Amino acid sequence: MIAVLKKGTTQAQMEHLIAWLRAQNLDVHVSQGEDYTVLGLIGDTGKVDMELLGSLDIVESVKRVTESFKQCNRQFHPDDTVISVGEAKIGGGHFAMIAGPCSVENEDQIIGVAQAVKSAGAQFLRGGAFKPRTSPYDFQGLGAEGIRLLLEAKRATGLPIVTEIMNINALDLFAEIDVIQVGARNMQNFDLLKELGKTDKPILLKRGLANTLKEFLMSAEYIMSEGNQNVILCERGIRTFDTYARNTLDLTVVPMIHELSHLPVVVDPSHATGKIKLIPPMAMAAVACGADGVMLEVHNDPIHALCDGAQSLKPDQFAALAGKMRIIREAIQ
Amino acid sequence: MIAVLKKGTTQAQMEHLIAWLRAQNLDVHVSQGEDYTVLGLIGDTGKVDMELLGSLDIVESVKRVTESFKQCNRQFHPDDTVISVGEAKIGGGHFAMIAGPCSVENEDQIIGVAQAVKSAGAQFLRGGAFKPRTSPYDFQGLGAEGIRLLLEAKRATGLPIVTEIMNINALDLFAEIDVIQVGARNMQNFDLLKELGKTDKPILLKRGLANTLKEFLMSAEYIMSEGNQNVILCERGIRTFDTYARNTLDLTVVPMIHELSHLPVVVDPSHATGKIKLIPPMAMAAVACGADGVMLEVHNDPIHALCDGAQSLKPDQFAALAGKMRIIREAIQ
Amino acid sequence: MIAVLKKGTTQAQMEHLIAWLRAQNLDVHVSQGEDYTVLGLIGDTGKVDMELLGSLDIVESVKRVTESFKQCNRQFHPDDTVISVGEAKIGGGHFAMIAGPCSVENEDQIIGVAQAVKSAGAQFLRGGAFKPRTSPYDFQGLGAEGIRLLLEAKRATGLPIVTEIMNINALDLFAEIDVIQVGARNMQNFDLLKELGKTDKPILLKRGLANTLKEFLMSAEYIMSEGNQNVILCERGIRTFDTYARNTLDLTVVPMIHELSHLPVVVDPSHATGKIKLIPPMAMAAVACGADGVMLEVHNDPIHALCDGAQSLKPDQFAALAGKMRIIREAIQ
Amino acid sequence: MIAVLKKGTTQAQMEHLIAWLRAQNLDVHVSQGEDYTVLGLIGDTGKVDMELLGSLDIVESVKRVTESFKQCNRQFHPDDTVISVGEAKIGGGHFAMIAGPCSVENEDQIIGVAQAVKSAGAQFLRGGAFKPRTSPYDFQGLGAEGIRLLLEAKRATGLPIVTEIMNINALDLFAEIDVIQVGARNMQNFDLLKELGKTDKPILLKRGLANTLKEFLMSAEYIMSEGNQNVILCERGIRTFDTYARNTLDLTVVPMIHELSHLPVVVDPSHATGKIKLIPPMAMAAVACGADGVMLEVHNDPIHALCDGAQSLKPDQFAALAGKMRIIREAIQ
Repeated sequence: MIAVLKKGTTQAQMEHLIAWLRAQNLDVHVSQGEDYTVLGLIGDTGKVDMELLGSLDIVESVKRVTESFKQCNRQFHPDDTVISVGEAKIGGGHFAMIAGPCSVENEDQIIGVAQAVKSAGAQFLRGGAFKPRTSPYDFQGLGAEGIRLLLEAKRATGLPIVTEIMNINALDLFAEIDVIQVGARNMQNFDLLKELGKTDKPILLKRGLANTLKEFLMSAEYIMSEGNQNVILCERGIRTFDTYARNTLDLTVVPMIHELSHLPVVVDPSHATGKIKLIPPMAMAAVACGADGVMLEVHNDPIHALCDGAQSLKPDQFAALAGKMRIIREAIQ
Repeated sequence: MIAVLKKGTTQAQMEHLIAWLRAQNLDVHVSQGEDYTVLGLIGDTGKVDMELLGSLDIVESVKRVTESFKQCNRQFHPDDTVISVGEAKIGGGHFAMIAGPCSVENEDQIIGVAQAVKSAGAQFLRGGAFKPRTSPYDFQGLGAEGIRLLLEAKRATGLPIVTEIMNINALDLFAEIDVIQVGARNMQNFDLLKELGKTDKPILLKRGLANTLKEFLMSAEYIMSEGNQNVILCERGIRTFDTYARNTLDLTVVPMIHELSHLPVVVDPSHATGKIKLIPPMAMAAVACGADGVMLEVHNDPIHALCDGAQSLKPDQFAALAGKMRIIREAIQ
Repeated sequence: MIAVLKKGTTQAQMEHLIAWLRAQNLDVHVSQGEDYTVLGLIGDTGKVDMELLGSLDIVESVKRVTESFKQCNRQFHPDDTVISVGEAKIGGGHFAMIAGPCSVENEDQIIGVAQAVKSAGAQFLRGGAFKPRTSPYDFQGLGAEGIRLLLEAKRATGLPIVTEIMNINALDLFAEIDVIQVGARNMQNFDLLKELGKTDKPILLKRGLANTLKEFLMSAEYIMSEGNQNVILCERGIRTFDTYARNTLDLTVVPMIHELSHLPVVVDPSHATGKIKLIPPMAMAAVACGADGVMLEVHNDPIHALCDGAQSLKPDQFAALAGKMRIIREAIQ
Repeated sequence: MIAVLKKGTTQAQMEHLIAWLRAQNLDVHVSQGEDYTVLGLIGDTGKVDMELLGSLDIVESVKRVTESFKQCNRQFHPDDTVISVGEAKIGGGHFAMIAGPCSVENEDQIIGVAQAVKSAGAQFLRGGAFKPRTSPYDFQGLGAEGIRLLLEAKRATGLPIVTEIMNINALDLFAEIDVIQVGARNMQNFDLLKELGKTDKPILLKRGLANTLKEFLMSAEYIMSEGNQNVILCERGIRTFDTYARNTLDLTVVPMIHELSHLPVVVDPSHATGKIKLIPPMAMAAVACGADGVMLEVHNDPIHALCDGAQSLKPDQFAALAGKMRIIREAIQ
């Protein structure tokens, strides 16, 4: 960490600050320029309150030199992490398609969609049992019954299951679930992340609506610092000033995450765009910029879906898209 | 709810849509114009999937006519809600100052600050025991011990306590706490909101970093729909493109909330700005636009605070500010 | 346009409003529901002040049914617009690569880069002569001399030239320039747009940093409404809360523009990302979602470039990327 | 300027970089830590391309130590700038109310409003003659005739006039105008700013919809660097994700500008909020946080105003508000 002192700082003020820093077990290296003095802080700077330091009258600015994320940092772990679930793999050159309905509705629906997406090449089945909704008066998902139906679909097709958890007290219900999803609204529900970090389940962590890339990686770090290294990152659109689509899909995070971290990153164009005509082009764009997978809503009868039908592909649309994604995936290798 | 159909929609298409809507127990009122047809939907439209409806090929756009928030809506509850805790009151003409340190550190600190803010006129003591931090490696608060120390301060000064909950499983620890705070990152942790809705404690609900005013009110609705009507809303800055302050304090929500809802709204300029020189002017601005209270960080020794010292006033700064706020409060009556 | 009246509006109030609307030469069609009354306004509603109407006490909300953009609207012009400059074409199935340095520096540089990008397959040469810079103390471009050098490069290679105008009074200098660029900061410099609308030059209009898609299309409309139909839209990143890249590239506008408008749309990943490692993946993603072209900064000696070197590809990097883009372009047909 | 080199940078790489920096007439001061090396760059670092430097493989990060704004910087000009127009003053303890209609419509209207706002205490008359509108089909203002009518109102009341310029070629029309306004959409129309910098008229510069505070100050710097020191800054709301008001009024810039700059800052709550009920509370908040003035739309017949009526106060509402603002202004002294 580097602190730049203001012009006009007295020797006494500087020494007082250095004493305070040393009391926090830091080594301080002073570099005096003509116009300013730079303090280099060495040691466990993670504990230093940058904002407090930066707010002091004599301090011009403060800057971290090293990133505060460690376990997900590619610098300390150069090889790509590969998440394996049975035969399905995500990351390190393995591309995965995760497909299924927004919400689980009934046995026919979920098994029907599971069979359809499997035959179109999907490696994972997704489906919501616990649904975070802005309004308490909206459909909240089938809950435990939804989990039971997903496991039926798993038995029927062999597809591993991805589904969302909203409350750590429901963890027992997820014993046979293959990948636990943390939704965007819970990306900084730190207590939930810590508890999931104590399991060994793969966690699909969605980026929060207004969270920076660094915060996203720090949330992965919450899971990993408790021992669970199986984290899949998922970009699903951020909130900006424009509203022509539901959110603004920030695809540039894909190559940026690959630069900063060894974790795999998948993209969810269904939730990001919310409009069926935008989904295939954005899914192809996700593949083209190097995503390790895509997550797509597929429904066999969109008009009757209980929620999110506007963003669900039909099985044949999904199959056609899957074919194009495979060609692009090969083109960029 | 109103759905506008596209020019060129056939009679058969329209009838098919109307049948589908009626199957959802809605009455449909058709109004045919020259260039478009408008369907008025009457009944429990809260269950209608606006996005699905809007995504249909023949539908130009969909619009809700009535707001989906009910219990916090001023239309159905014209009188201001007043939250009372002992002698302290917030809302309906009662202005409250909530002050205290960012984190509880030790008994001397919390009791010292409590006495100082009380003598400067604060009606509530705030202090963090459970701290949401972006990094798992940062100080996470004293936890249960912090709660114990807050209750010591309550006994010493009589001030009611406001402190944050991060995990519903910790609720037992909050039995003697007066006002439970839900932090910005948990504003859409719906399971937490529902559980708090089953208690009768006043809840101070902070607006999420990137949540709209409507989402904010819907989160209050989550608490209220479970039975707990004691909700205090708190504006604490939103995330925008600019970074000169920590967040962008959106003071205009104060008069807007007073228009839409009967709930009291307080403002937290300390977290919003993160810079000590910006806090007094923004606290005064909050009063001037009608806030029912302000929440301020006060510390007796900012440079040694474990966190957020940069935004903590000293007791004498708080006392001076409190005096000016009282004058402005009178001026706007 | 539709206006929804509030419950409780009296007959007299409604009649007064209708009289006011009719005085604005509108037909008003009344549709009375149980809970609300809907007024359908027919005629030249473009002149109606929606905000004034929406602010009236008896009006719940106002909604435009038809878009206010006409000339760039695909509804009224179903076929793709193709912009032709000599043999180069953009739009309607024609994909164009526009490449060149950020700033024109000297004759050797611009001719060298022009030859390099031409041999790698670029159809247009770009280069800045007039440079919009945040600070008045930064390099502002070579101006007229830069234009002269660009025309030298055109003579040497035959490549048509794309360069930015900042001031309509400089228009004479652009007589031999093939495509005039309007930068993001001038997207709503309406007087400049109108003057360019009186020329017959193709205009490459960049989206403003914080402009919605609708505002972007309305700015194209400013040019077209004066007679010039040759507009190329350019997405170059928007401003959001995150800062890991210079801007947030909003690729989803590409398929959305293709839905709403017949104008071609190109993508500039160099300015959007500002980081050389992010440019190739985002250029490929732009192709994958259907962009009609990409605009890329290429420099033969990035470290000595006077500005923006951080985002300039070398000619061999550009050539390798061009090859991959061609494969993806074929895959998505 | 400080550049931090990455761990693992070789001596040869560092020397190559230092040579390149010295070739740009900079002194380089090397400070070697255990984990990183810091280069302190001394000299005219305004010319250094920070992005290029930061993009080099061996460079971890780059940071400016001194701000790039000079003439508007309080560090180099500690006393408040006071803008004087006749007897009216803004800044340095002088508070000004600028009031008038959105658009000039006719002589009766503008003189009527001018008399009304004068008697309520306004020091300046505002009114739009040239109107920037998102759509080319919307009313664009009376133009030269509007200017003529404003000057009639000035003759009738003695109030100095504030009105917007959109095109430097119209400057002659502004010869008798007292304060020239630059609108939000032209905040980075650098050629316009430079030309206005060559005049000696006070310029009221509005903040762009999505411009940072630093960019705002740099745009003032464009005017000042050409010689014109008479700049008034105006906050009028920024664009964020929320839409309950037209824009998000960022009042915190007021105390922040007072910290960084000696220029006066006024606030325009009419355009920022777009809703009449929000204007008085936000105007009072602007005063409470220290604004040097407010700019308010006042109209004698809002329902017939050609534009923006939704945000226009009536004269008696303005007079009542003016009284409250005076009390708050006194309270904060």
